[in-house]
Amino acid sequence: MRNLNHETITEAVLARHVDTADPRLKEIMDSLIRHLHDFAREVHLTEDEWFQGIQFLTRCGHITDDRRQEFILLSDVLGLSMLTVAMNNDKPAQCTESTVFGPFHVDGAPHYELGADISNGAHGIPCLVRGTVRGLDGSPIAGASMDVWQSDEDGLYDVQHEDIDHAQARGILHTDEQGRYDFRSILAVPYAIPHDGPVGDLLAASGRHPWRPAHLHFMIEAPGYQTLITHVFRSDDRYLDSDAVFGVRQSLIADWKQQSDGTYLVEYDFVLNPVDGS
Amino acid sequence: MRNLNHETITEAVLARHVDTADPRLKEIMDSLIRHLHDFAREVHLTEDEWFQGIQFLTRCGHITDDRRQEFILLSDVLGLSMLTVAMNNDKPAQCTESTVFGPFHVDGAPHYELGADISNGAHGIPCLVRGTVRGLDGSPIAGASMDVWQSDEDGLYDVQHEDIDHAQARGILHTDEQGRYDFRSILAVPYAIPHDGPVGDLLAASGRHPWRPAHLHFMIEAPGYQTLITHVFRSDDRYLDSDAVFGVRQSLIADWKQQSDGTYLVEYDFVLNPVDGS
Ligand SMILES: [Fe+2]
Ligand SMILES: [Fe+2]
Repeated sequence: MRNLNHETITEAVLARHVDTADPRLKEIMDSLIRHLHDFAREVHLTEDEWFQGIQFLTRCGHITDDRRQEFILLSDVLGLSMLTVAMNNDKPAQCTESTVFGPFHVDGAPHYELGADISNGAHGIPCLVRGTVRGLDGSPIAGASMDVWQSDEDGLYDVQHEDIDHAQARGILHTDEQGRYDFRSILAVPYAIPHDGPVGDLLAASGRHPWRPAHLHFMIEAPGYQTLITHVFRSDDRYLDSDAVFGVRQSLIADWKQQSDGTYLVEYDFVLNPVDGS
Repeated sequence: MRNLNHETITEAVLARHVDTADPRLKEIMDSLIRHLHDFAREVHLTEDEWFQGIQFLTRCGHITDDRRQEFILLSDVLGLSMLTVAMNNDKPAQCTESTVFGPFHVDGAPHYELGADISNGAHGIPCLVRGTVRGLDGSPIAGASMDVWQSDEDGLYDVQHEDIDHAQARGILHTDEQGRYDFRSILAVPYAIPHDGPVGDLLAASGRHPWRPAHLHFMIEAPGYQTLITHVFRSDDRYLDSDAVFGVRQSLIADWKQQSDGTYLVEYDFVLNPVDGS
């Protein structure tokens, strides 16, 4: 303990955790400490670089508030969010795939009737969204709760507008007796994730763009089924193969069809996994 | 890219970093991404646990300000700080060993003449500190800058007292022509690192105490020598073998001797490594 070196310190730190009451916390911290130390040794991290890391995390913390979550952005751009989603959402191939939650969901979005316009003043080309929510066996799921959110035509969510303090282009709906849903909103467009902070600086230094392909967010909940958190992506988007947060799944891509009046229509059918499913 | 799973996503994320301009940044980020992903896979991190991690980092960010640095505390208690110090301070055995910088250093501490009392009102039993600063070859180093800082008898640094806005028990001195230094301050006592925040919660959940053995901090700079950042520890401290931040080195322990008038004396001689040393 009084003569640790950069090799022996890891076991000494682990030994200090033997009294952790929760075995799962111990498992997580042991693995985190080993990997953190292995990382530092592998790159021979300098003291300057260590301090740059401290400053980076500090900047992330200071830019994070009720409307901005830089640590989720960081996890997203490093692929950790999608990795975690992928590990925890193994399900039968027929089920709708999950993708990242992202930092722009807001609890307590307004409730709407089916057919309503959830844009609530958000700017964009009108778009009708409709489809069904079914179980893995094909049975319609009535009364499923659908929490939907999306950006406006400027690529900004309502919470990113400093002058907007009410919900726009987000809302909660419930499927009808036949498991159907429909609502009006605006056309999804590609957007850049917030890149005026430390995560944006990291992307720029890494030669990466901050863009995400156009998408709608959905969180669908129904008793007896696993909650589905996912997106539906636009098939004609240039960023489908370079999503800044690695969230695209082929099965989540749909055609947004322009109608004769210039508005758009997208149809997507969701399939939920029963809680007793594999 | 559109059908990544939790195994293939790592290579996809790494592939996105090929245009990183700075090869050192690429080396660091590649290693960090691999270890972060390996960690998540190894423990099969759940989505709830991932979100607890996001919330933990957010709390660290929000408690960090000009006077408190929770990310440094976190690095310290996980042994990352000491590991980094150890890796970057290989030097001949005769040189004074380095240890952690810690979160309580303040730039621009007041300058004092040799012999001065740097406590400046901090509470504690008076203590005289003296010794020499020499090079590896034994030659005295005149005019070496010594930045010294320590806690008061309550175990708090000046910056931790909300009602104190001036420097106490910290200061900068310079060695004389014979490389000698001496100053008056107060007796060093063991203290608990700040544990009313997320790092304290982590320590408690891990069954760890937050205590550090009594010590004085020194940062010693002189032209032609490597800067030395270290502590001198009290030999009679109960926490020498369980320092919360893994900073103790046997060679940094000294006897604090009580004098007949109740005050203390500690003597410690520093040996700096020439910049062209090994
Ligand atoms: Fe989004
Ligand atoms: Fe200290």
